[in-house]
Amino acid sequence: MNTNPPAAQFTACGLITLTTDFGTHDPFVGVMKGRMLARYPQARIVDLTHEIRAHWPAEAGFWLARCHRYFPAGTVHVAVVDPGVGSSRQFAVVEADGHLFLAPDNGLLATVVARADQCVLRHVGPSVLERVGASRPSATFHGRDVFAPLAAEIAAARLTADELGPVVTELIPGWLDDPVAGPGGISGVVVTVDHFGNLLTNIDRELLAQVPNPVVRAGGHELPLRRTYSDARPGDYLALVNSFGVVEIARAERSAAEGLGLDRGAPVSVVQK
Amino acid sequence: MNTNPPAAQFTACGLITLTTDFGTHDPFVGVMKGRMLARYPQARIVDLTHEIRAHWPAEAGFWLARCHRYFPAGTVHVAVVDPGVGSSRQFAVVEADGHLFLAPDNGLLATVVARADQCVLRHVGPSVLERVGASRPSATFHGRDVFAPLAAEIAAARLTADELGPVVTELIPGWLDDPVAGPGGISGVVVTVDHFGNLLTNIDRELLAQVPNPVVRAGGHELPLRRTYSDARPGDYLALVNSFGVVEIARAERSAAEGLGLDRGAPVSVVQK
Amino acid sequence: MNTNPPAAQFTACGLITLTTDFGTHDPFVGVMKGRMLARYPQARIVDLTHEIRAHWPAEAGFWLARCHRYFPAGTVHVAVVDPGVGSSRQFAVVEADGHLFLAPDNGLLATVVARADQCVLRHVGPSVLERVGASRPSATFHGRDVFAPLAAEIAAARLTADELGPVVTELIPGWLDDPVAGPGGISGVVVTVDHFGNLLTNIDRELLAQVPNPVVRAGGHELPLRRTYSDARPGDYLALVNSFGVVEIARAERSAAEGLGLDRGAPVSVVQK
Repeated sequence: MNTNPPAAQFTACGLITLTTDFGTHDPFVGVMKGRMLARYPQARIVDLTHEIRAHWPAEAGFWLARCHRYFPAGTVHVAVVDPGVGSSRQFAVVEADGHLFLAPDNGLLATVVARADQCVLRHVGPSVLERVGASRPSATFHGRDVFAPLAAEIAAARLTADELGPVVTELIPGWLDDPVAGPGGISGVVVTVDHFGNLLTNIDRELLAQVPNPVVRAGGHELPLRRTYSDARPGDYLALVNSFGVVEIARAERSAAEGLGLDRGAPVSVVQK
Repeated sequence: MNTNPPAAQFTACGLITLTTDFGTHDPFVGVMKGRMLARYPQARIVDLTHEIRAHWPAEAGFWLARCHRYFPAGTVHVAVVDPGVGSSRQFAVVEADGHLFLAPDNGLLATVVARADQCVLRHVGPSVLERVGASRPSATFHGRDVFAPLAAEIAAARLTADELGPVVTELIPGWLDDPVAGPGGISGVVVTVDHFGNLLTNIDRELLAQVPNPVVRAGGHELPLRRTYSDARPGDYLALVNSFGVVEIARAERSAAEGLGLDRGAPVSVVQK
Repeated sequence: MNTNPPAAQFTACGLITLTTDFGTHDPFVGVMKGRMLARYPQARIVDLTHEIRAHWPAEAGFWLARCHRYFPAGTVHVAVVDPGVGSSRQFAVVEADGHLFLAPDNGLLATVVARADQCVLRHVGPSVLERVGASRPSATFHGRDVFAPLAAEIAAARLTADELGPVVTELIPGWLDDPVAGPGGISGVVVTVDHFGNLLTNIDRELLAQVPNPVVRAGGHELPLRRTYSDARPGDYLALVNSFGVVEIARAERSAAEGLGLDRGAPVSVVQK
C-alpha cells in the first residue's frame, strides 16, 4: 500500500454506510441517522451491521475491508466500535479506492489500509470538529456527536477529504496478527461467526494458492475444501473460499460454530493434504 | 389462478422489498443494498424481514403472499432463501397483481402463485444474467451477485418483465401442503411464530367460513375464536383471524408458543364446537 | 408544560420515525413502511427502535422524549406499543417543540408531554380516520391500518396538526412514577437496559444537582459517579450521567445488568456520600 496523498480522489456520492457494535435494541443508530438527516436531508444511509462484537474493532475492519467495493465510489463508511470513547484517542480518516472511511483511531481501519492499493491517512483536526459543531461532544456517544455530523458534511460535499485534517503516516495498528504462511502451511484465526454459524477466517484466497492440495484444520477436525454448501450432505462439515474471498468453515444446513464448539479467535490452519 | 401472459402488467415504481434468511448480524443485506444503489441510486429499499427460518422457503412465501398488497403496484419483491445456492436451480420470476417477485425456483413463490388472480411465470434467461453482469456469480451469495443487480435494473425500468426470460407453465411446488377442509373440519399447520410468540397458521379466513360454530385445536388445547387480544384476560389462550387474514393462536400479553410448547410445523385444526 | 394551542407550530419536513415493540423478526414494520410509501413515495423513514419491551409503553415514551431533538423540526414520530389494540382507546397526538408525536392514548406520550416546553394535545377525530381510509381497521394491527396512513398524510403535509382532531387537556397518565427527590436523596427506577447491558434510569441530570457529593445505589451496591466508561478499569462498576442526560449504571467493557442481576423496574437511588 502506498500512502501518498494525490491518489485516492474521493468525491462524495451522497451515500453513507454504518458499522457499529450498538445493536438494534436501542435508538442509538436511529439517533445518528436523525443527526445526519437534520444536516443533510438527501443523505442515503445503509446499515452494514450493528452487531459487531462489543468493543472488538477487528471484526468491523474485517467486514469494511471486504464490503466497501460493493458500494459506489464516493461512499462515506462510518464505523464506530469504540471502547475508548471519551478518552483522548484520535478520529481516523482513510481515503482508499475512491471511498472514505471514518472511525476511531484504535486499530479498526488497519485491515482497510493493509488491503488498499493506495490510500491517504488523516487525523481529524480540532478546527473541523468545531466547524461541524462537534468540538464539545458528550463523553460517551461520539457516534452521534462527532461521527454523524462529520459524515453528513462529507457526504453532502460541504467538507472535502483534504479539509478534514493533517495527513499522518500511520494509524494505530490492528488487534489481530495477519495470517502467517510458512513451510508447514498457513495459520489464521476465526474473525467472525455469521448468522448461519459459519466460521469466517482472515485467510484470503491469495494465500491459499501457496499450499498445494490444501485441507483445513480447526478444532481437531480436518475439512475438505468444497465449492459451495450444496456440495456436502446436510450435516457434513466442509471448508470453502466464500463469496468475500476468505476461507470459511461451514456445516451443510447446520451451524459449524455450534457443532465444533468454536468462536471468534479460534485458530485455523491450512495444510497440505 | 390464470397464467396467461397479457394480464399482469407490471410497471416499476422504484421500490424494492427484501425478504431473506440472512439475519441482520452480518453485512450481507447491506452489501445487497450497496450493489442495488450502485446501479440505481434512486432505489427505495424496504426490509420485509431477514429472519425467515434458515433454509425454509415456505415461510418467505407465506409472508410475501400476504404482504405485497400493502406496497404500491410496481414494487419488485426479492426473496432469497436458498439452500441450493450454487447448484443448478433456476431463478424464478412471478408477475402478479401488478407486482414482480424474484426468488430461487425452489418452491418459495408457490403461495404467491396460488393466491394470485392472474400471473405470469418465468425463468430468468442466461442472456439477461450476462446483460446485468451476473453470469459468473460466486458459488455462495447469489443475493448479492444475481438478485441485487437484477432487481436494481428492473426497479429502474431498464429491464422489463418480458425481457427477463421465457414464460414457463409451472415452478417448483411449495414445501407445505395446502390446508384440507373435510367433513371433520379443517387441517392446517403453523407456518411462523411471530415476535410476540403468536402462532400463525396457513388456514385462511375464507376456509373458516365452511365450519359453523368453529373452535381451534392445537397442542391438546381447544381455543375459542375471539376478535382481538384484549377480548381475553392476560394469560388466557385464544384463537383469532389475524390482520393478515389467517387463523392465529395467541395468549393475551404472553407467548402462546412458549406456553403451548409449539413451533413451526405444528398441526392445527378447526372443528365444529 | 404549557398546553395552549398557538405555540407548537409543526410544519412537516417529510421525515417519519418509528418506535414499536414489533421486533424485526416479522414483516410488520416493513408492511407499515409499504403503506406509508404507497401514499407518500417521497417519505423518509427512520427506525428508532422496534425492541421496546412488549406491551410496555413507558420505555417507548422514555426514548422518544430523549431522542426527538436529534431529528429536524417537522419530523413525525410514530410510536406503537399497544396492549389495548382493538379496544376503544383513543389515538393521541402531541405537538411539541416543532415535532409531532402519534401514539395510542395509553400513557406512552406522558414523558414527552411532561418534558416539553409547550405542547398541544389532541385525540384523532373519527372524520380524519375516515378521510385517510382508516375508519375500519383490523382489530389487531392499527400500526398498519391507522398509524401508517395517518403519518404518511401528515408527513406529506396533506393533513395539518389542526385538522387531526379536537384539542384535549390531558392524555392517559404514564405508567411510571417520576423520580422523587427528598431529604434522603433521589429515588428512581431502571427504565431500559441497553445492548451493552447498561442500566438506564429515569433520574435526569437536573435532579442530580440537588444532591451534594452524590453516589448511586442499586442492587445492594454503591457506585461512584464517573465521566465515561474508560474512567473505570475493565470489570469495574460505575455510574455516570449518560449522553441522553440520565443516570446510567454501567460495568466497564461488561454487562452491568448481568453482573448485578438487575432489569427494568429495579429501584435506583442517588444519595449523599
